[in-house]
Amino acid sequence: MSSNPVFEQKLAATWPTDRWAEVGVLVAVSGGPDSVALVHALRRLNPQASLTVAHFNHGWRPEAGLADQRFVEGLCDSLGTACQVGKGESPPGESPGSREAAAREARYAFLLEVAHRVGARYVVTGHTADDQAETILHHILRGTGLAGLAGMRRVRVLSPAVSLVRPLLGLGRAEVLEYLHAIGQDFRQDETNADTSLTRNRIRRELLPLLERDYAPGVVEALLRLGNVAGDAQRLIESQAEALLDRALVVRDPRRVEIDCRALDGTDRHLVREMFVAVWRGQNWPRQAMGLHEWNQLAELALTEEANPTPLQQLPLAISARRQEARLVLSGPARNCGPFHA
Amino acid sequence: MSSNPVFEQKLAATWPTDRWAEVGVLVAVSGGPDSVALVHALRRLNPQASLTVAHFNHGWRPEAGLADQRFVEGLCDSLGTACQVGKGESPPGESPGSREAAAREARYAFLLEVAHRVGARYVVTGHTADDQAETILHHILRGTGLAGLAGMRRVRVLSPAVSLVRPLLGLGRAEVLEYLHAIGQDFRQDETNADTSLTRNRIRRELLPLLERDYAPGVVEALLRLGNVAGDAQRLIESQAEALLDRALVVRDPRRVEIDCRALDGTDRHLVREMFVAVWRGQNWPRQAMGLHEWNQLAELALTEEANPTPLQQLPLAISARRQEARLVLSGPARNCGPFHA
Repeated sequence: MSSNPVFEQKLAATWPTDRWAEVGVLVAVSGGPDSVALVHALRRLNPQASLTVAHFNHGWRPEAGLADQRFVEGLCDSLGTACQVGKGESPPGESPGSREAAAREARYAFLLEVAHRVGARYVVTGHTADDQAETILHHILRGTGLAGLAGMRRVRVLSPAVSLVRPLLGLGRAEVLEYLHAIGQDFRQDETNADTSLTRNRIRRELLPLLERDYAPGVVEALLRLGNVAGDAQRLIESQAEALLDRALVVRDPRRVEIDCRALDGTDRHLVREMFVAVWRGQNWPRQAMGLHEWNQLAELALTEEANPTPLQQLPLAISARRQEARLVLSGPARNCGPFHA
Repeated sequence: MSSNPVFEQKLAATWPTDRWAEVGVLVAVSGGPDSVALVHALRRLNPQASLTVAHFNHGWRPEAGLADQRFVEGLCDSLGTACQVGKGESPPGESPGSREAAAREARYAFLLEVAHRVGARYVVTGHTADDQAETILHHILRGTGLAGLAGMRRVRVLSPAVSLVRPLLGLGRAEVLEYLHAIGQDFRQDETNADTSLTRNRIRRELLPLLERDYAPGVVEALLRLGNVAGDAQRLIESQAEALLDRALVVRDPRRVEIDCRALDGTDRHLVREMFVAVWRGQNWPRQAMGLHEWNQLAELALTEEANPTPLQQLPLAISARRQEARLVLSGPARNCGPFHA
């Protein structure tokens, strides 16, 4: 058992120990190889840091679920870390898609609740580069823009006090397994994560191996590079869209946004589209129901020379748009509590 | 036989008749459904326009190839259009990949030569939305950035006098077949186009149907939308990169480019990367050998505070980069005739 394997060095290079050693860290551990390797490596990188393990038992497969839980509890004993277990309820009779979404939501709600309770600054998960490639391919197949093409973000704010970090996003699953083998650490098989969709699991187990073998050796690397470039491009465009919005915004309150279209004169249509995405983001209006067609519709309305009042354009979720002289007026729903905020 | 089917209306909406009716048009016709539908529809949209058909016989499958040629010649007789036939030679013993690339190159060289000879302003091909989706997926699998993600361009300059246009890029293969059925026009099967790679043919015949059926119904539409958004984003970023280069460029001659790095201060790294792509484009330096790693290397060199002369960095194809005080100096190859210009 070597004392500081490459895996730990890479983890420390991606997420330096001094960033988390002094604050509480909550590690989401399913019992599968990725999260087991993560908590192990974090513990070994800093034996004094305040690490808590959170395990969520979805309750979908009672026996296997309990065995996973016992395994994680045993691991925590051996590592000397506290262990918080959450239990989900399987809502009966729902479609697989909504069941998985509900499971994912329940798991993140549990993680955030525990993080607040134990005072953890970071929630960390074991998502690897392979998970990232699967996510990117899944997004491509079901339809995405550049933001989705970038895949999972390395850091995401969950609440004012807590951020989600995915420190293994640059490491491959093979490196995880090699590390576990090197330190002689066992793990549970979690081939079908309860909160992972059936499509996603098939992408992992059937589609990517098929693509790698018959179509494009190195496809995982190709997807990761594309995701990186898309993320870089999207960040650049988003910052320009925010700056454009700053210049064009006249009125903003929870129910109403007014844009001065003269400030958009000569602006690239894609940037105008992204400016409206920034409006939705700022208003916390759900974007899931908006598609390329609707963003184009708004850009069209904003860039038209037509200064006469136009008919009210209805957008998803009771949001409407109208051009009044040089202004584009967006009216939001009475209360900001659409189905996506339930 | 209806007089002006939807297909012709859509074609005329995408590529208005008055843009091409007064100038020569060369239609690349393989004998397959897409190109047969295209030449038919163009002829019917304007019976007086100067249309020439170009057919390239790759010589790979002597019997089928000759039958294709005879079919196209017969079609031209019935439509009253001139027909130019080119013949390729199958270079023996090469790998499929290089053979296909050579075939594609020979076909485009033939098309351009005929266009110049008959005085055609446009070369048009029958690529459809389905071809576009296949191209985008192929690029994703083998590795691409945003430019490649946008797929085939609708218009591409082939020479100062001739542009390539793909007017069917917004129409699906199903619409092509429906049109041919409606007008009672026969066509040849060209399932394995000689200048289409084996991987590409499998993407069409096996992978996309599998994805549509088992993974993501509507995947073709999803790929096309992603390609559109990527193209919009890439055009926006490219125009900004060109503007940045205008501000930062100090010296440009065929062998040497000097950039004033002070003009890049505070600029987003991705934009700086794209500025270097613009340098390569402007110098006509081949970009195929440059990867994300090399572009990052250049951006790093340009954005560093380090003002001392740095060691010469060797880039592919005998191009080198060096930082000298505030300047970044790129030195190109002695003669601009790398392997990719052969």
